[in-house]
Amino acid sequence: MTDTTQASFSVAPQGVGVVSPQCARFTELLHLRSGGVIADYELVYETYGTLNADASNAVLVCHALSGSHHVAGTYADQPNNVGWWDNLVGPGRPLDTNRFFVVGVNNLGGCHGSTGPSSINPATGKPWGPDFPMVAVVDWVHAQARLADMLGIHQWAAVVGGSLGGMQALRWSMTYPDRVRNCFVIAAAPKLTAQNIAFNDVARQAILTDPDFHGGNYYEHGVVPRRGLRLARMLGHLTYLSDDQMAEKFGRDLRGDSLKYSFDVEFQIESYLHYQGDKFANYFDANTYLLMTRALDYFDPAREAEGDLSAALAVAKANFTIISFSTDWRFSPARSREIVYALLRSGRNVSYAEIDYGAGHDSFLLDDPHYHAVMSTALEGVTV
Amino acid sequence: MTDTTQASFSVAPQGVGVVSPQCARFTELLHLRSGGVIADYELVYETYGTLNADASNAVLVCHALSGSHHVAGTYADQPNNVGWWDNLVGPGRPLDTNRFFVVGVNNLGGCHGSTGPSSINPATGKPWGPDFPMVAVVDWVHAQARLADMLGIHQWAAVVGGSLGGMQALRWSMTYPDRVRNCFVIAAAPKLTAQNIAFNDVARQAILTDPDFHGGNYYEHGVVPRRGLRLARMLGHLTYLSDDQMAEKFGRDLRGDSLKYSFDVEFQIESYLHYQGDKFANYFDANTYLLMTRALDYFDPAREAEGDLSAALAVAKANFTIISFSTDWRFSPARSREIVYALLRSGRNVSYAEIDYGAGHDSFLLDDPHYHAVMSTALEGVTV
Repeated sequence: MTDTTQASFSVAPQGVGVVSPQCARFTELLHLRSGGVIADYELVYETYGTLNADASNAVLVCHALSGSHHVAGTYADQPNNVGWWDNLVGPGRPLDTNRFFVVGVNNLGGCHGSTGPSSINPATGKPWGPDFPMVAVVDWVHAQARLADMLGIHQWAAVVGGSLGGMQALRWSMTYPDRVRNCFVIAAAPKLTAQNIAFNDVARQAILTDPDFHGGNYYEHGVVPRRGLRLARMLGHLTYLSDDQMAEKFGRDLRGDSLKYSFDVEFQIESYLHYQGDKFANYFDANTYLLMTRALDYFDPAREAEGDLSAALAVAKANFTIISFSTDWRFSPARSREIVYALLRSGRNVSYAEIDYGAGHDSFLLDDPHYHAVMSTALEGVTV
Repeated sequence: MTDTTQASFSVAPQGVGVVSPQCARFTELLHLRSGGVIADYELVYETYGTLNADASNAVLVCHALSGSHHVAGTYADQPNNVGWWDNLVGPGRPLDTNRFFVVGVNNLGGCHGSTGPSSINPATGKPWGPDFPMVAVVDWVHAQARLADMLGIHQWAAVVGGSLGGMQALRWSMTYPDRVRNCFVIAAAPKLTAQNIAFNDVARQAILTDPDFHGGNYYEHGVVPRRGLRLARMLGHLTYLSDDQMAEKFGRDLRGDSLKYSFDVEFQIESYLHYQGDKFANYFDANTYLLMTRALDYFDPAREAEGDLSAALAVAKANFTIISFSTDWRFSPARSREIVYALLRSGRNVSYAEIDYGAGHDSFLLDDPHYHAVMSTALEGVTV
């Protein structure tokens, strides 16, 4: 009996449980960086925990390329649909919902419920498709700020994100310096390199040249550019993993007992990539993929200060936690250090952790104990 | 006058000048690693320099994925068609044609004149297409050995290759140990990693899923899978360059004066990759691309010795020169060191140079002074 009781104490803390997405509609014009305008849009979001009386405990979690508002928990009708950062968010977890009111939001242009290319354009009664305006990271930040207004949150206790989500967090600290007390920029970069852009370009070209893309109007043709999306995801996924991790997980293991000497799947790594690509092509919208990768390409906040990132960051007031992963070669630690040095030069308060972890760029989604210990410590220091 | 004379001495040595490809036909059955058989095939080749009386000065140059027999010089009717390793081969160049008789050969399965998928299958009167048997590195070595027989070359003074060409050189030293005195393995690896295979897989899937591929029978349909080939080359090319080199050469430079906020080309790196992809799709055969990448995937000579590369290399008798490049992340220096350590463990004579050069995997094609100095020194030591 005693053993059982002890055992029940030692299990991992429970997550946030069953959650429900909500939807907010905005009818005020949103002027976009591209020059475009969105007049009427919806954002789908989820919240975990309870907003305190003075709304000082709210944390915004920004998603990356293929993420969504579904950060944590499961759905009543989809018990296996676990939020993409569930290991981080919940009672007793680093983003402790006993203390924080956590908000996840699907970005404008997304394909998980917020207004995007697959939504109906009220002006035409048809899906937006290629007419959906180009969205930039700063546009998402403005849209998120309106959601914050609607929720009664004047200042976020923290804005947190990994990869493209980290870029949003960084942008928040510069665009709304008074509205962010703490900023967590994880596995990110201050801007893309030529190589980063090149990988995005190949992925986009796979989609754009798929005959089923139909110039972005595939909805009307009753098809999706599956081949292109599949290739884009295979390539993306491959670059999110580390060489060592792939070697350990797959190596040169064969799918069958012996070589078949054909172009069918021979190696386990091929089987895995095809599975990931097929799965993605079944649910992700191709136009959204194009928009998200272009937002990555365009992100370069230092441009506004003639390339001087520390000058651009001088307006920021948040405390910064910057985290990188040793085996991330998409946004390597050197890229995070660029942010750290710029923050130090501009006199900001910054902590930096370089986590020795083997899972490549995707490390930020996993629950490495050192990584989560850093997150817990930093988040415990966030006053609410 | 004196100045002019001196100037004429200081210009770079001339290359091999105008050359002509030759064609050799073989009618003896060639049994392939895959179990397939080729009964009748041609190999296109070029030679530079003069074979000496005892045929002891012959050097075989093996080509990589997209290379050919046209290693050096130009063609009378195509003065701008310079061989892919012209900077290495010629009078006074590291592969000095005053000393050596250099042979370049287009591999079986290729698309530059040797029998391959785009050749007519005598059994059907139509292009081989997908019926062309899978070829492995060892098959190329056997085919090259027959060409050597035909040319009266019993033993190569050296077999030299970069990347997939380096794998052929390594394979030569193991399959025909008495026929190779010196073996140059440059920017290669003893086998592909999961990541290497994954990049090949994405490239192949781009071709295989192109609607114009028609299961490899595109010749009959009067089309080529351009979209797939273009993507494959863009991805390949991107991985042959180094991150630093791309940053230096392209950075985030825009194609136009300002951002257009569209999915058209915005950045110079996109323009460059599209150009490379389009150019390649205009001349390279898709089925050959599939075959060459599969030969890379399959290459793993240690398999024959239960994974022990040094045991597999114990049969070799050649002197080895192994060269890698600091910024090559496709086949990093660590991969070359695997070969070096295996050779040392098996008691072979091996020299190793790790060249600090910024051009990534493609460095082996360029004429970095340190690299060429190493090659010159090593080749000067080759007795003829």
